[in-house]
Amino acid sequence: MNNPKWRGIFPAVTTKFKENEDLDHAAMEKHFEFQISSGVHGLLTCGSLGEASTLSFEEKLEVTQTALNVADKRLPVLVNVSETRTANALRFVEQAAKMGVQGFMVMPSVLYAADAREAKDNLRTIAKAAQLPIMVYNNPVAYKVDLTPADFIDLADCEQIVAIKESTDNIRRITDLRNAVGTRYQLFMGVDDLSFEGLAVGADGLLAGLVVAFPQETVALYNLMQAKRYDEALKLYQWFMPLMHLDVSNKLVQNLKLVETLVGVGNEFVRRPRQPLVGAEREFVTMIVSKALATRPDVSAYL
Amino acid sequence: MNNPKWRGIFPAVTTKFKENEDLDHAAMEKHFEFQISSGVHGLLTCGSLGEASTLSFEEKLEVTQTALNVADKRLPVLVNVSETRTANALRFVEQAAKMGVQGFMVMPSVLYAADAREAKDNLRTIAKAAQLPIMVYNNPVAYKVDLTPADFIDLADCEQIVAIKESTDNIRRITDLRNAVGTRYQLFMGVDDLSFEGLAVGADGLLAGLVVAFPQETVALYNLMQAKRYDEALKLYQWFMPLMHLDVSNKLVQNLKLVETLVGVGNEFVRRPRQPLVGAEREFVTMIVSKALATRPDVSAYL
Amino acid sequence: MNNPKWRGIFPAVTTKFKENEDLDHAAMEKHFEFQISSGVHGLLTCGSLGEASTLSFEEKLEVTQTALNVADKRLPVLVNVSETRTANALRFVEQAAKMGVQGFMVMPSVLYAADAREAKDNLRTIAKAAQLPIMVYNNPVAYKVDLTPADFIDLADCEQIVAIKESTDNIRRITDLRNAVGTRYQLFMGVDDLSFEGLAVGADGLLAGLVVAFPQETVALYNLMQAKRYDEALKLYQWFMPLMHLDVSNKLVQNLKLVETLVGVGNEFVRRPRQPLVGAEREFVTMIVSKALATRPDVSAYL
Amino acid sequence: MNNPKWRGIFPAVTTKFKENEDLDHAAMEKHFEFQISSGVHGLLTCGSLGEASTLSFEEKLEVTQTALNVADKRLPVLVNVSETRTANALRFVEQAAKMGVQGFMVMPSVLYAADAREAKDNLRTIAKAAQLPIMVYNNPVAYKVDLTPADFIDLADCEQIVAIKESTDNIRRITDLRNAVGTRYQLFMGVDDLSFEGLAVGADGLLAGLVVAFPQETVALYNLMQAKRYDEALKLYQWFMPLMHLDVSNKLVQNLKLVETLVGVGNEFVRRPRQPLVGAEREFVTMIVSKALATRPDVSAYL
Repeated sequence: MNNPKWRGIFPAVTTKFKENEDLDHAAMEKHFEFQISSGVHGLLTCGSLGEASTLSFEEKLEVTQTALNVADKRLPVLVNVSETRTANALRFVEQAAKMGVQGFMVMPSVLYAADAREAKDNLRTIAKAAQLPIMVYNNPVAYKVDLTPADFIDLADCEQIVAIKESTDNIRRITDLRNAVGTRYQLFMGVDDLSFEGLAVGADGLLAGLVVAFPQETVALYNLMQAKRYDEALKLYQWFMPLMHLDVSNKLVQNLKLVETLVGVGNEFVRRPRQPLVGAEREFVTMIVSKALATRPDVSAYL
Repeated sequence: MNNPKWRGIFPAVTTKFKENEDLDHAAMEKHFEFQISSGVHGLLTCGSLGEASTLSFEEKLEVTQTALNVADKRLPVLVNVSETRTANALRFVEQAAKMGVQGFMVMPSVLYAADAREAKDNLRTIAKAAQLPIMVYNNPVAYKVDLTPADFIDLADCEQIVAIKESTDNIRRITDLRNAVGTRYQLFMGVDDLSFEGLAVGADGLLAGLVVAFPQETVALYNLMQAKRYDEALKLYQWFMPLMHLDVSNKLVQNLKLVETLVGVGNEFVRRPRQPLVGAEREFVTMIVSKALATRPDVSAYL
Repeated sequence: MNNPKWRGIFPAVTTKFKENEDLDHAAMEKHFEFQISSGVHGLLTCGSLGEASTLSFEEKLEVTQTALNVADKRLPVLVNVSETRTANALRFVEQAAKMGVQGFMVMPSVLYAADAREAKDNLRTIAKAAQLPIMVYNNPVAYKVDLTPADFIDLADCEQIVAIKESTDNIRRITDLRNAVGTRYQLFMGVDDLSFEGLAVGADGLLAGLVVAFPQETVALYNLMQAKRYDEALKLYQWFMPLMHLDVSNKLVQNLKLVETLVGVGNEFVRRPRQPLVGAEREFVTMIVSKALATRPDVSAYL
Repeated sequence: MNNPKWRGIFPAVTTKFKENEDLDHAAMEKHFEFQISSGVHGLLTCGSLGEASTLSFEEKLEVTQTALNVADKRLPVLVNVSETRTANALRFVEQAAKMGVQGFMVMPSVLYAADAREAKDNLRTIAKAAQLPIMVYNNPVAYKVDLTPADFIDLADCEQIVAIKESTDNIRRITDLRNAVGTRYQLFMGVDDLSFEGLAVGADGLLAGLVVAFPQETVALYNLMQAKRYDEALKLYQWFMPLMHLDVSNKLVQNLKLVETLVGVGNEFVRRPRQPLVGAEREFVTMIVSKALATRPDVSAYL
């Protein structure tokens, strides 16, 4: 298997719905094109931010097909594997692979708080079925399973596993992973408001959230860091920070869909039990976006 | 709607699988009959302990049909509603109601950490579609949503909601609920190793785990508490406690399936990513069961 | 050493100050007599509720001398040992022993989160110097050190350690301790709003907070439980619960001093950095006390 | 008051004891000189790492006098104010100020988990008495009080408060503080294994731990970051990381005293209840130091 050496900005795209909760493929086509033309380096469909837990098996494939169509091989399209049963995950990766995805993001275990032995075995089994590059999504905060640097040493012989989405909310992990496994895996920071720090300690990219509304600013942050222009990057990051905090919340989907709506690149339709923000939460996000737009930097020079 | 005033011991039954992960209906028939003939007062299918997260929509209905067949109206059969999308939960309760279940256990939200507004709205919507009595499963430890006594005051006008499975791991909640809503809801203690305490402060029943292997002892505990024979109940509970701790664990399914196997009333087959216990964990459970069997009390007088 | 087999209600008395933060011995004499004449079974001075962290070494001895004077051997007086350095704890127990205290409450470690080896060694060293009965105060929530039932098996050879104040906030521990060490130690529930549950599972007494304002009700609860009159005890406990919650708070000192003031048996003076309650917190406590007084049960028959 | 604009590396020096737990001033003189001659920019005495909780009021002044003697105004000496009663803190700052310290580190509240109102009032009161520059030590992990960026906006009118030791273990706070209060306060990263990240997002200095054994490497890290030589800084940080993790532990004192001993610049004597490391913990630290020494970089070019 060829290691694609993923790097750069991979948006975890939102899934677009109509008011009746049906998939809105036209809106997704438009949004995926907006992301791609803004310079992002990959797309991830059906992640947490994509409301994976409300999508059926078939819908996840449909959303991903739409992304593949729009991408047209201009950049890799990955789909998140969020099946709660291993057998279903195997079926899923087989069908998605046939459709032509370039890779997968895989959670060590969904809903069940697997221990490391079970989680690693689950990953290996899925990887073998996938026969495509895989980014492991390590998020103990949301999913209760934590694969440590030692676990990733164990997994190093599994050639399909080529990347890690680091979402422990513990910035030290990037350095601990580099010390433990060198450059065996591409490392993506999965927590928006640790982006600058993650890139500063050597992450290869961002699996990002706010990029769905601000792709150019996110790409600019990455470009500045790549160019070692840290002072300009930090200034941009300071502007971005209040927005990025909105990604670290139980309401991240509603937060980001409201942000998308306010900047004119999306709608607020979510699938229940989720509901759009109301009251103080809504006002808070609106205020954050309003302030951000009023002081929005011109990043055109960094693209 | 007629309030059934559920009380007593409701096992959260395990789902029996064959080695190839297929449903084993014959084993389930046998096990459900074992529970019923041991004197339990209700059955709950497809709960956390029933590996709900690995069962398809149709399989959940099939398992429940088997329980209904065995129960043959001798006691109420409830099924857990664990769909992650509200629309699917509505479909599920409609189909299960047609099959003849006596009620539902409903989680305020699964996977998505809904806030109280969303969770209550979700419950009301499901309750309306169900048109059958509902026990709300309040488990913030596992499912991140906590409905407070104040929230249950709000929900008091929803007639289908007749009971609460109290799984906050906070024994004070029983008393706080009694102070807040009196006897509006039947209260079931949902944490095995708080059983005695829960019944002591006035819970109406147990939505229990270890009962799957020790139904007579669990029924005896309940009967002794009902008869105000606290000293004998406490002595029985002290014997039971090391077993009951096995229910409060990420590995509760594997723990209890091993206990069932060791006492001869089940098998250890689970669906992956879960795997049977190995090593020190396995030895620990084996030792606990071995000690319990060596000192097993004769409860025949309390049944 | 003679094991005193402590049992019943031991108030963790508040330390009375004047407005200028000086000790108010006259107020303490009055309050200690109020407690004793209400039927409590022991007194604990200089605990967390006694603002130990703001008292000098000498002041702790002075407060305790006042308690000894008032008690006049009618009931045991224990003093909390809260020195952060072992050498100072040794000096303290020696001087307090000379004054005539009947025993000590000892924290495994104060401020420093000692491990079990260090904590047990600390306890043994203090016990040896004390040559008086000791109640170990196990409170991992506030003090970060947790001695497990296995640790108390280890300590069983230390004859001075005769009792445990169980403040893990985990009611299961009473039963686990009984299973592990039988009746080797007297067990006191140290969390007010787990009082009924603690006594129900066999605790020998309460190291209590709200007793400072409501001693007769607390003694009545204990007497009812001793007499196995659980239904009446539970009814009393339900009335008591909102008050008892005030003991489980970072503001327990201010909460309880306000309660004392509202029922006419104390004042609100605290030592800074603590300050009396203001705003919503003050209103909340006032409302709780007001409701409690309006429905205060007559417990005279239970004393 | 003149704002000293502290910046650079401030070691939280260990307090040296003899085997009998007496202060070892000769060892401290030697160690403080070692730090100063290695290029650090300030000294902090009697912090957590200095075992403040086991030092008497007078001993804290004595240790600080020794530091002042050695420093001889070559760099600022700050002393940590760790009194648990406000009145004692006021006496302490007055006496230390007379001795000639250049400033104080002040915890919002020690042992008592003050709320923001109490904590800010405590800080203002101490600041007024001190009449010297103050660094607020914000460490909710160890001390349960968290002053937010909004609280530091409130405190901006208190001219003595000139710096913040950021120890929330949340790297985002540096950026949030910059966004909230600009450069009103000098920001020191107080968590060793967030040093690089802290400096990358604009911290002015490190209030550091491992510097006690590796001062040149710590100063080199700072110098490289100041010079925007991030790649070399990151490489040095990666080498340093396993050592720096030893500072984030309940056993930080014993860890760092063992590290000091192994590199030949200290001893392991601690005051009980602390005890030197044994067994696996000791072996782990020894192994970490051994690896670090075997790959120790030559930083002479960066000093």
